[in-house]
Amino acid sequence: MDIYERSLALHEELGGKLAVRPLVAVNDKEALSKAYTPGVAAPCREIAKDPAAAYKYTRKWNTVAVVSDGSAVLGLGNIGGLAGLPVMEGKSLLFKEFADIDSVPIVLSGQDEDDIVRAVEMIAPTFGGINLEDIAAPKCFAVEKKLKERLDIPVFHDDQHGTAIVVTAALLNALKVCGKQLPSARIVICGAGSAGIAICKLLMESGAEEIVMADRRGLVAQGEEWLTSAQAEIAKVTNRGGIRGTLADGVKGADVFIGVSAPKQLTKEMVATMAEKPVVFAMANPEPEIYPEEAFAGGAYVVGTGRSDFPNQINNLLAFPGVFRGALDVRAKDISEGMKVAAARALAELAANELSREHIIPSPFDRRVAPAVAAAVARQAKEEGLARI
Amino acid sequence: MDIYERSLALHEELGGKLAVRPLVAVNDKEALSKAYTPGVAAPCREIAKDPAAAYKYTRKWNTVAVVSDGSAVLGLGNIGGLAGLPVMEGKSLLFKEFADIDSVPIVLSGQDEDDIVRAVEMIAPTFGGINLEDIAAPKCFAVEKKLKERLDIPVFHDDQHGTAIVVTAALLNALKVCGKQLPSARIVICGAGSAGIAICKLLMESGAEEIVMADRRGLVAQGEEWLTSAQAEIAKVTNRGGIRGTLADGVKGADVFIGVSAPKQLTKEMVATMAEKPVVFAMANPEPEIYPEEAFAGGAYVVGTGRSDFPNQINNLLAFPGVFRGALDVRAKDISEGMKVAAARALAELAANELSREHIIPSPFDRRVAPAVAAAVARQAKEEGLARI
Repeated sequence: MDIYERSLALHEELGGKLAVRPLVAVNDKEALSKAYTPGVAAPCREIAKDPAAAYKYTRKWNTVAVVSDGSAVLGLGNIGGLAGLPVMEGKSLLFKEFADIDSVPIVLSGQDEDDIVRAVEMIAPTFGGINLEDIAAPKCFAVEKKLKERLDIPVFHDDQHGTAIVVTAALLNALKVCGKQLPSARIVICGAGSAGIAICKLLMESGAEEIVMADRRGLVAQGEEWLTSAQAEIAKVTNRGGIRGTLADGVKGADVFIGVSAPKQLTKEMVATMAEKPVVFAMANPEPEIYPEEAFAGGAYVVGTGRSDFPNQINNLLAFPGVFRGALDVRAKDISEGMKVAAARALAELAANELSREHIIPSPFDRRVAPAVAAAVARQAKEEGLARI
Repeated sequence: MDIYERSLALHEELGGKLAVRPLVAVNDKEALSKAYTPGVAAPCREIAKDPAAAYKYTRKWNTVAVVSDGSAVLGLGNIGGLAGLPVMEGKSLLFKEFADIDSVPIVLSGQDEDDIVRAVEMIAPTFGGINLEDIAAPKCFAVEKKLKERLDIPVFHDDQHGTAIVVTAALLNALKVCGKQLPSARIVICGAGSAGIAICKLLMESGAEEIVMADRRGLVAQGEEWLTSAQAEIAKVTNRGGIRGTLADGVKGADVFIGVSAPKQLTKEMVATMAEKPVVFAMANPEPEIYPEEAFAGGAYVVGTGRSDFPNQINNLLAFPGVFRGALDVRAKDISEGMKVAAARALAELAANELSREHIIPSPFDRRVAPAVAAAVARQAKEEGLARI
């Protein structure tokens, strides 16, 4: 059986990957009176007086919704919310396994931007945080932006920011291995969708200054007619040299290639035109923009992919459990850019002791990761006044 | 400590009454590949091809949302969704304890009828059923009606139908004890809100023909100016004698008093005017319309309340776990009137062997109840063509 058949068999055997665990038995009159009526009126009254008491008397403090309309699921595209439910259950499972967060998958029947925003706004009181998942660009930008404005709990589109955090961490360490600095590194990001743009923003927030983005239509540059509105925004602060042309033009002399696009975008000949000791992160899944062997043949010095069968696996799993754990631990109102940078730095730090070309980032199964990321995120939230406790 | 203090202490100690239980560990590469990417694409594809496969590959088959806007919580009134969360968590806990249903509390930030409908419609794909809870009348009628029309999963407002099922069961047995028949029994229902009207409808569905409803403004009769639209509807099929006046006028000669209203509505003098061997169900909580002692002093033959400290406790807990268990077991598309009647009859049947004036209904902790109700509900769903399996 291949992995798809094994997965299907597992899903059928389990009939879903999550269940509810009651924290108290209700098998006699006293228990019923305390957990339910009439006693339950007491915590209700406390919360009615002070909404913050919900963090004390309910599970809100540890509960995160994984919300998706299924409009951009993994490599499957727009399969709709219901068909995306196995992914969302999987995500919730990972929240529990890696950060002991009680996460509830919520898949949506509609895909309209305003409908999504309104639905999440309506159900938000239940949760301590909202993880948006597999929502297509450009809708995902507006959905997240509106929800961040309207809600007083963290809203985090993992496809954007989880990826950005892990890439930033990996790049900080890769540049160290190469003896280069982030501000002076010339970086090309291939794939100017939601993940690419989020990576670009977080790298700039972390100190990068020389970034060029590429879309399948060419390099993102001010004035190009085909730019989406998100790309037009990012064009204002990237590609300061105003380079036009193809990806091949962009990577000439570049120190870093970051791919979040499609298979086979980068050739070894293109890698050979990059600067000395180039870094190549080829994260298209399951088939990368270039396979490590080829990248090395072209002269790459450090190579990372999204895959577990090569060294330097750049995997979101390294970020989202710890990010939400830290946010929940301080009952954060938001997840800020500063908190994401703090997460990236903490993650990089964990691999710093044993840094090498083949070890720029911890393993996704390294159990030190989520607590370290959480601590950094919580600390930063407090410093920025975004923590409730 | 009184029950409220004990409950508050319990809630603070637990920090919420439910957590997530992962059904599979994700602690190595193979497990991650099966439960999440890339393997999870397989069940996603199956569901994209056939939405019914969601019942096979996800937890939808066993998951019920407990949804509330907190507009009519217990005796607390309109405290809002967030403050109602301890009640909804409690309800979810009872679903798990009594019927092994994985239930997710969802409290809402808005109370507008259309917003509630749209939000539930949006999140519905996640769930195998929707339990509406503590939503104020008359909004609850429209919310439930619209959702039943739009969704292909059961939608059940427990405050209405759970109560109606248990009252119907209790009354079937009480009348047996009195040697009376439902079709010829004269029944007065005090409280013409959502619960009262639902009781009225289900009793009629079960064979009752002589029902008079009373509101705090008087008896519900066609042409009264103060009737709500729901009351005007029910006036067309009740009170066939066209009695006008107060509750006292209504109970004269009645066989049955059913109270879902407020404390102290019924006096022993009023009971004394009822027919021979009258049945009194005084279910206002925590203080009933009349205390059992007084009701007996007035000549009542069978008395039930909502309280656990008197015999014949008429408690919703006897209905909703089994009703949803049965509906989920056959992946029902709806919960019909027929399924509710079947639930009531199955519940009555369980107490039939040891029937007495003090035992017309099983104890809420009788573990035979949910399976028996579930079996009857599932059977009826199949007979009505509402079952998917």
